[in-house]
Amino acid sequence: MNNFELYNPTRLCFGKGQIANLNTLVPADAKVLILFGGGSIKRNGTLDEVTTALGNREISYFDGIEPNPSYETMMNAVKKIKDENITFLLAVGGGSVIDGTKFVAAAAKFDGEPWDILLKMGANINAALPFGTVLTLPATGSEMNSGSVITKKDENAKLFFGNPLVYPLFSILDPTKTYSLPEKQIANGVVDAFIHTIEQYLTYPVNAAVQDRFAEGLLLTLIEQGPRALIEKENYDVRANIMFTATMALNGLIGVGVPQDWSTHMIGHELTALHGIDHAQTLAIILPSVLREKETQKRDKLAQYAERVWGIIEGDNATKAAQAITKTEEFFHTMGIKTQLADYDLGKDDIAQIIKQLAAHGRTTLGEHQDIDLATSERILQRSL
Amino acid sequence: MNNFELYNPTRLCFGKGQIANLNTLVPADAKVLILFGGGSIKRNGTLDEVTTALGNREISYFDGIEPNPSYETMMNAVKKIKDENITFLLAVGGGSVIDGTKFVAAAAKFDGEPWDILLKMGANINAALPFGTVLTLPATGSEMNSGSVITKKDENAKLFFGNPLVYPLFSILDPTKTYSLPEKQIANGVVDAFIHTIEQYLTYPVNAAVQDRFAEGLLLTLIEQGPRALIEKENYDVRANIMFTATMALNGLIGVGVPQDWSTHMIGHELTALHGIDHAQTLAIILPSVLREKETQKRDKLAQYAERVWGIIEGDNATKAAQAITKTEEFFHTMGIKTQLADYDLGKDDIAQIIKQLAAHGRTTLGEHQDIDLATSERILQRSL
Repeated sequence: MNNFELYNPTRLCFGKGQIANLNTLVPADAKVLILFGGGSIKRNGTLDEVTTALGNREISYFDGIEPNPSYETMMNAVKKIKDENITFLLAVGGGSVIDGTKFVAAAAKFDGEPWDILLKMGANINAALPFGTVLTLPATGSEMNSGSVITKKDENAKLFFGNPLVYPLFSILDPTKTYSLPEKQIANGVVDAFIHTIEQYLTYPVNAAVQDRFAEGLLLTLIEQGPRALIEKENYDVRANIMFTATMALNGLIGVGVPQDWSTHMIGHELTALHGIDHAQTLAIILPSVLREKETQKRDKLAQYAERVWGIIEGDNATKAAQAITKTEEFFHTMGIKTQLADYDLGKDDIAQIIKQLAAHGRTTLGEHQDIDLATSERILQRSL
Repeated sequence: MNNFELYNPTRLCFGKGQIANLNTLVPADAKVLILFGGGSIKRNGTLDEVTTALGNREISYFDGIEPNPSYETMMNAVKKIKDENITFLLAVGGGSVIDGTKFVAAAAKFDGEPWDILLKMGANINAALPFGTVLTLPATGSEMNSGSVITKKDENAKLFFGNPLVYPLFSILDPTKTYSLPEKQIANGVVDAFIHTIEQYLTYPVNAAVQDRFAEGLLLTLIEQGPRALIEKENYDVRANIMFTATMALNGLIGVGVPQDWSTHMIGHELTALHGIDHAQTLAIILPSVLREKETQKRDKLAQYAERVWGIIEGDNATKAAQAITKTEEFFHTMGIKTQLADYDLGKDDIAQIIKQLAAHGRTTLGEHQDIDLATSERILQRSL
């Protein structure tokens, strides 16, 4: 096991009716900006519920945060915060709204051009506005971590930053708030959480027994509960299990002390930035090809994954590994998520532009061994045609 | 799944050489009191290492904290803190030293008679001195939770308190610091962590898929690594896995949103207070009898435990449950821990006094259904003769 630090101060308030606790969670004298995306939280009553829970506090609203929140949009929120002397942010939505709010929290206190936060990956953040979240879409884990991904539209760039100052103070997770989500968003969320887990698990063994067992537990839960979530739309426990799994998949816990491989995310980000394919969809396209391309290096863990997660006990490790990758693809299909570039009308002529963007963003040494260079990324994309 | 709050602000610094980080973890202007037990940390160099890492800070020492730390001893530390204007506490040791330090941290800031902290179970704590820990013995999980157990010798009372103000600010876990532990302490630690996990897991199903999988992962890890820890005394990864497991077994994570059954601990505490039997040994005596006494109520989870942890797939649930309880006992024996009262020269004539103490401490409605009354506790003890 590698050395590590585990620190996560976010307070998770989980279950039915937890929104009412906003009255104790948000400082009584706060001037609150509620940030959200489109109109769904207006239509389904969540925004009213939040506003009521905040009682007499002064509240402003900032809406229109898009999927893959853009620098351009979020800078408008920063202006509003400064103009109105906002003291507390409340993100109500999914990972995009929360990621956007993290950027705004840091940018509102940043000296200089806030795009530098992305260029320095957050290392230059010295202060941030306090904020909480009300999660409505289980997927990204942003509600309990200190990372964020922001898109700059004019550069087709989707960049990450992280800093302990942007841990949410609290996050409210009420599984009933997911009942009205479109099926596609549930499917995307399950696949996103699944791949977050895989990227911290399918590398090479370092005898990290607990982290492996926890990761396998999350994968087993998603395989068991994911398809049910598409059918049993108001099954509280199914939604609760998926919501808690998605949080645990990317709150730092399963990734401590182990090597990690975020190559699927890095290549996937370029597909979203260039072609607007949903984040989770891009991951489902790239992951199986990464696993096949790096099968030799990953074989020991792939065999363990085959045995413990898929119950594949026959054959040698190479056989088990191959079967487990196929099972993984089939699981994505079961969730209604496609796994080839052709499914999104992309072909071999589109690969050069993706590689060019990877190069432009310095993503030339990906993977747990930092040996996925541009030529390897190209082979990965060819496997996904 | 039940509603829950998950909040744990302790910073875990895990791995070889982490003690050197004390210099950044402890405030530069702190006046530090190092609290510890006996001479082992002097003999094995840990105390020197800690002192060196603290650099020029003013340091005092308080030693002699006994297993099952006593109110009487810890109040001497409180006096020293007040006399010397100590501003930061550093516990160096196992669960007893850390539990004692938590009490001291709260008592040093408490108005009135500090024994009231125990009588009110910590609800009356309004402030505490900040403190960190250097863990040398994996077992209790105290290094990453906000609970503590203190013994009052003159009353044979072993009582619990808890409060968010006594989360350690940080805990340093260096697995190499466990190499020199006596075999019995490693065995006790593994069994303690195992039973902590069981008490948050073997109740009744509430469809908490993640908590169940995590608990099962910890149990599987202890079964796999525990016996190896007794033989491979300097296998870093084995010790690291046990250390991380013991922390995860009682840091709040696996217990959120599920019913819990702490009856084994409550009855065990009386055995330690009356007869001085090691904490983990008392748990190993009581747990199998609790599981047999409440087998019907716990059957569904016992069968799940049998299948997922012990790989028992034949027979009906009652058969699986019975076999799993036997396997559990056998595991304790493998670790060198005995499971009968007779092994400690106690017999049926000793039961009445234990029941009397349970009554005196108000432990008359134990278990996840609060239906383990004194008569049930008596039957449990008789099963353990």
